[in-house]
Amino acid sequence: MNKTKADIGLIGLGVMGQNLALNMESHNLTLAVHNRTPESVDNFVNITAKGRNFIGCANIHDFVMAIEKPRKIMMMVKAGVVVDSFIDKLLPYLEKGDIIIDGGNSNYHDTTRRTNELESKGYYFIGAGVSGGEEGALKGPAIMPGGSVSAWDSVKDILQLISAKVDGQPCCDWIGEGGSGHFVKMVHNGIEYGDMQLICESYQIMRDVLSMSNEEMHKTFKKWNEGELGSYLIEITANILAFKDVDGEPILDKILDVAGQKGTGKWTGIAALNLGAPLTLIGESVFYRYLSSLKDERVEASKIFSGPDNFFDGNKEKALKDIHDALYGAKMVSYAQGYNLLSEAAKEYQWNLNYGGIALIWRGGCIIRSVFLNKIKDAYDNNKDIKNLLLDPFFRDKINNCQKGWRRTCSLAIKHGVPIPAMTSSLCYFDGYRNPSLPANLLQAQRDYFGAHKYERVDKPRGQTYHTDWL
Amino acid sequence: MNKTKADIGLIGLGVMGQNLALNMESHNLTLAVHNRTPESVDNFVNITAKGRNFIGCANIHDFVMAIEKPRKIMMMVKAGVVVDSFIDKLLPYLEKGDIIIDGGNSNYHDTTRRTNELESKGYYFIGAGVSGGEEGALKGPAIMPGGSVSAWDSVKDILQLISAKVDGQPCCDWIGEGGSGHFVKMVHNGIEYGDMQLICESYQIMRDVLSMSNEEMHKTFKKWNEGELGSYLIEITANILAFKDVDGEPILDKILDVAGQKGTGKWTGIAALNLGAPLTLIGESVFYRYLSSLKDERVEASKIFSGPDNFFDGNKEKALKDIHDALYGAKMVSYAQGYNLLSEAAKEYQWNLNYGGIALIWRGGCIIRSVFLNKIKDAYDNNKDIKNLLLDPFFRDKINNCQKGWRRTCSLAIKHGVPIPAMTSSLCYFDGYRNPSLPANLLQAQRDYFGAHKYERVDKPRGQTYHTDWL
Repeated sequence: MNKTKADIGLIGLGVMGQNLALNMESHNLTLAVHNRTPESVDNFVNITAKGRNFIGCANIHDFVMAIEKPRKIMMMVKAGVVVDSFIDKLLPYLEKGDIIIDGGNSNYHDTTRRTNELESKGYYFIGAGVSGGEEGALKGPAIMPGGSVSAWDSVKDILQLISAKVDGQPCCDWIGEGGSGHFVKMVHNGIEYGDMQLICESYQIMRDVLSMSNEEMHKTFKKWNEGELGSYLIEITANILAFKDVDGEPILDKILDVAGQKGTGKWTGIAALNLGAPLTLIGESVFYRYLSSLKDERVEASKIFSGPDNFFDGNKEKALKDIHDALYGAKMVSYAQGYNLLSEAAKEYQWNLNYGGIALIWRGGCIIRSVFLNKIKDAYDNNKDIKNLLLDPFFRDKINNCQKGWRRTCSLAIKHGVPIPAMTSSLCYFDGYRNPSLPANLLQAQRDYFGAHKYERVDKPRGQTYHTDWL
Repeated sequence: MNKTKADIGLIGLGVMGQNLALNMESHNLTLAVHNRTPESVDNFVNITAKGRNFIGCANIHDFVMAIEKPRKIMMMVKAGVVVDSFIDKLLPYLEKGDIIIDGGNSNYHDTTRRTNELESKGYYFIGAGVSGGEEGALKGPAIMPGGSVSAWDSVKDILQLISAKVDGQPCCDWIGEGGSGHFVKMVHNGIEYGDMQLICESYQIMRDVLSMSNEEMHKTFKKWNEGELGSYLIEITANILAFKDVDGEPILDKILDVAGQKGTGKWTGIAALNLGAPLTLIGESVFYRYLSSLKDERVEASKIFSGPDNFFDGNKEKALKDIHDALYGAKMVSYAQGYNLLSEAAKEYQWNLNYGGIALIWRGGCIIRSVFLNKIKDAYDNNKDIKNLLLDPFFRDKINNCQKGWRRTCSLAIKHGVPIPAMTSSLCYFDGYRNPSLPANLLQAQRDYFGAHKYERVDKPRGQTYHTDWL
């Protein structure tokens, strides 16, 4: 039975929008839905979702009028100018106190700007990162809302209702001010890039050094998924390795090795560069997708360059244990770097971020969900001001235990010519982070030599700078 | 004897501006000089440069009127709003055809914008990257001018006159349209970050694995400077290692290992991320400066984490040869990545870049000057459309020869816990670039699995995409 007024409005009936709408309706909410093209509204209301509680609205005026006040309007449209354009279309019909929620992959700078603009006009704006892909949108995604904190109480119940749950807790909680929700979603995506790259590197060592079959690798990842590496991405990797094409052959071997991307990994790297956060593993992962896209050049280059021609004559089981530890060690660094980026952003933009809460949100619904995230939550519960995740006793012990296998894996891959940028980059970060005297003394001497940039001294107080007349 | 009118005007009497002014005057040019603070003009004209051909101008009107038409006005001021503010002050007094040259470290986006704005008003704008530090500015820097090509003929003689010369050729030539001059200068600085990082990594392996004294390292770098690694940065590294503090102890050991930076390395990384160019080595070098700045955290972390406790028991001479090869191999990758970034920018912004000419400019005056750059010039002379520098026969053979030592050096450092992000990152790039089947097939399968992003197939034409129903 349709109610007279909708509980919430949703604009944008792409796959994500449709699934999120169906998800909401399945929780007994009535929705007004609108799309740029009226046919999509028709199709959705009268075919896809026939008989369910949707009010299809062909124009913006009818759409806004169909929603109960204060209005909650969720947009699931393409990030960028499309979001601004829909805001402009909505504004003439909105009333003070109405709330716009942007559930797309918007850039956090845009979200900060939109929050300020709409608040200055008496409306509310929430930029909510939504992760989980099509399936998550339908069955329960992770949701990272930030922006107008005054609007949180009005939308909290709905957003938590439709989100994923882990141990009964919703994977949705308030993130913080301005663009912080979309920032956290962006870092989530960056971490996703890193996790995927690490799995790919593990896979390539197994395939090209250990000469394992897809079936053997399937079993390995399946086993790993039952342990401390247990995660959605490891799980689907195991499934992918077992998947057969129509001809009965492994489908993985038919897929072209050219990685696509939609830009949030790139944004994460740019944010890290701008905020001074050493986000090396995700940076390498983004660059490596670019490198993969040079397929023709790589094929050409493979004929020109010689590589090492080593045969693996070690113990395969031991090597697999080492690869496991390399993946785990690198993953700890990746999350430590990602959380460090969050805290640099919080400092820069004066956001009050709930770091442990973010780990809780990421435990379910989203692509990087894993048992690992519980440990991050624990680390912040133990010490909410911890400077670096690696310093937490659990991670400290883990990384100390992992490092031998991690080092052996890196050396093995390097010896065999298999590229492992994420595993080595993270190991170098670990070795740099735990090093009390890096060679940056030489770098500062060089800068002072050619540019009179001055240096500090180990035997003088910080902040005092010195210049040497080197010539 | 002062002429009535100045050949050129110069705004900004900081160290770089003063030295560039003195350089110009020493080539028999008469200069009008101006600075925001009139006292600096007074000091420069009446004290620093007393008796030489400078016309000191306390205000902008007098300054502009003192210059022969069409006026050439070089600005050596802080990048950013200060440049725009001086342009605004100049505009009321300029005449059509006058030329403003920005010799600061401006962001190339700003330079593109300023070129368009000034050209639309009938003036000319040239953004000229100037490299060489204080000494270069005085004795002859490398200059990378781009922007209003119609103005090049008017300023060419002056800029080439004051630039460094190598084999009689000026280290200054026209770069291209819009912000290309500052873009090329930015990439120069990024490469400088990479070169410095590589030297630092070599130094740390020598110091912490091979336990070499500063004197031994001084000799090693001095020897390297006479060979194929010969370059300004290797030369000053040798000098720094030999330099004694007032107490007779090596000064290097007194310098704090916290690297500073002024932002052009960061810009290079951001440009690479935005343009889709895999610029891994420079990216790591920038991130590593950030990591170095966490001095207190690193000292704390060094007490918490265990590292490997290996002793080096190999052959030191062989290890040094390997480090040499690692540095050389990594350097080839760094320049290949930098040139790849240039060509991606040229595509994006429709610049006609003269790649070989850029190598010629960088041979002298600037911080990255080296014998190596002649080989890059040769590579572009052999094939101006070469897709990647590594494919050039000289570099191909070199990298094939270097790679064994390079791999051994990476493994040695990893085994001993010495962080070598630039050496490993570049090796992974090489191993990825020469690999015809990267694990990106798995990555694409994952993306299709969780996000229905589709994939291409190895057995179907490029551009056709497929989706699998994985569940």
